[in-house]
Amino acid sequence: MRLGKTTWQFNQPVYLQAAGTAVGPVEGEGPLGANFDKVFDSLYCDKENWELAERALMEEAVRISLEKVNMKPEDIDVMLAGDLLNQIVTSNYSARQLNIPFLGMFSACATVMEAVAVAAVLINSHYVSNALVAVSSHHSTAERQFRYPTEFGGQKPETANYTVTGSGAAVLSNQPSPIRVRQATIGQVVDMGVSNPLDMGSAMAPAAAKTLINHFKDTKRDPSYYDLIVTGDLSRVGSSILRKLVDDEGYTLGNNYEDCGVMIYHQEQPVFAGGSGAGCPAVVTFGYLMKEMERGIIKRLLVVATGALLSPLMIQQKETIPCIAHAVSFELEEDS
Amino acid sequence: MRLGKTTWQFNQPVYLQAAGTAVGPVEGEGPLGANFDKVFDSLYCDKENWELAERALMEEAVRISLEKVNMKPEDIDVMLAGDLLNQIVTSNYSARQLNIPFLGMFSACATVMEAVAVAAVLINSHYVSNALVAVSSHHSTAERQFRYPTEFGGQKPETANYTVTGSGAAVLSNQPSPIRVRQATIGQVVDMGVSNPLDMGSAMAPAAAKTLINHFKDTKRDPSYYDLIVTGDLSRVGSSILRKLVDDEGYTLGNNYEDCGVMIYHQEQPVFAGGSGAGCPAVVTFGYLMKEMERGIIKRLLVVATGALLSPLMIQQKETIPCIAHAVSFELEEDS
Repeated sequence: MRLGKTTWQFNQPVYLQAAGTAVGPVEGEGPLGANFDKVFDSLYCDKENWELAERALMEEAVRISLEKVNMKPEDIDVMLAGDLLNQIVTSNYSARQLNIPFLGMFSACATVMEAVAVAAVLINSHYVSNALVAVSSHHSTAERQFRYPTEFGGQKPETANYTVTGSGAAVLSNQPSPIRVRQATIGQVVDMGVSNPLDMGSAMAPAAAKTLINHFKDTKRDPSYYDLIVTGDLSRVGSSILRKLVDDEGYTLGNNYEDCGVMIYHQEQPVFAGGSGAGCPAVVTFGYLMKEMERGIIKRLLVVATGALLSPLMIQQKETIPCIAHAVSFELEEDS
Repeated sequence: MRLGKTTWQFNQPVYLQAAGTAVGPVEGEGPLGANFDKVFDSLYCDKENWELAERALMEEAVRISLEKVNMKPEDIDVMLAGDLLNQIVTSNYSARQLNIPFLGMFSACATVMEAVAVAAVLINSHYVSNALVAVSSHHSTAERQFRYPTEFGGQKPETANYTVTGSGAAVLSNQPSPIRVRQATIGQVVDMGVSNPLDMGSAMAPAAAKTLINHFKDTKRDPSYYDLIVTGDLSRVGSSILRKLVDDEGYTLGNNYEDCGVMIYHQEQPVFAGGSGAGCPAVVTFGYLMKEMERGIIKRLLVVATGALLSPLMIQQKETIPCIAHAVSFELEEDS
């Protein structure tokens, strides 16, 4: 069922059955470290290059998520996956092992909630019973592709983000489970003219604000409806911009608002303004927040995954950075 | 409704309302040239670089498709788009003008039918009334990104493909129209160990065969059910491999099988084994085949878009090429 202009509501049973997360050493040492299923102690993840390491993260996250529900790949009806590498090769190459009908997704760091939204539509509409969602990012593959060779040792400003090394996978299903997927608000592409790729929090905040406000209007809700609202990777800089932008529209984000990019690291870790990357909202949501829901500490959760839709070539061509945010609400079954 | 393991059937009304196509000069000189809405007479498409040219193609295709149904962007409920450029920037930057909820898609040259399939699910399930689908590719942006600098003047083997310069956009809707979207068969990622990026037809043929055979099994149909079955961009080399692979499974592709990459160019044009690129199946389907359906010459059409899910980095790392194919069937309303 459709609510307003941008929100889809899932009235049929759509549940988050299980999730798997695999992260790198910096994330393992962060405040949420104990919540992740697998922590690799090196950025190489026992592989010979960083791209293979990122693939190992996704394959491990997928394996764990399936194991938790005692499913094999052939029990899954569709896989929806994406990542930050050119041509989403982490996802494509992970999928070739699995023999599952595959839909490649890309919304940069917002990919995880795009994939959950489309998976939920497919389950709600009885096209599939079980869907597998997976996304990943890796600090060193992202540095190589989007920024500078690590060997160059370029200095970074405090507004910069640190790409999360991690993959989150989840099995969504029509079979009962405590956590229900309730709504998805699909983002529009917003470009406010920011052109500095070392300040993506500021670039993404207006897109996050737009999706949040659309969500509140479409669902006729106030931010206080949720026990927790998280953005994907606005970091310290973007989060405070978001609070102001939402406030300007008459909605107040109180203590129930946090950012996954801030949550995932200790403030004293060398991560500049905080974490980013497609893996960031995925491992925080699937690794930590879902456990908080299972523990009954969070009953209603809104995850606003945020993505900067740039490429290095667009920055070289002096373009500004278009951004997007997709929001998905999760509720405890008893509460929905 | 689900058919078998990999096919989704659209029992609610889902129609292809209108389509727009914009192509470059080589496609304009090809046998289908008169069918395209806009033919640019230079690869630059009146822009200052190739990436802007590709964006101009998509923006033009979108503009034309909306104009044909007398719709404005605000009449569209969701846009699904993708292209071959890193981080699908043609689509992202085209979407920032439009203010439509946006889902980024990537299945390489199979993207167009992934987007049509997901759009059809959304319409069939009443999440949206009108969806806009768009994909593109450009010979020179693809050469720069995937192969060699054009200035290098590298020689190519006869198995190589020539990337189509073109964009196809379509408006899908629940409002009656002659052409109905009937089924989608979602591909699995198949990697048969081919590692030569200058012979993608051979790499993609097994993925196309798998999707075709799944489609026939799921729908309990024979190839003769369709007036025409087209693959996306297997070209001359891959098409004959496909015929053999499908034949081995007991299905015979007769005179009702063609390949968009072969159809779009005259044999004497300097395009090696034929056309490829995300734009190839899009402009042939939306520009030519839809007109053949409107003329009643084709009543039942199956489009099997084929994609090679590689990146240059994966080839440098000595990886083989995973491939995928997504099939969508279109039928005249009177016939379905």
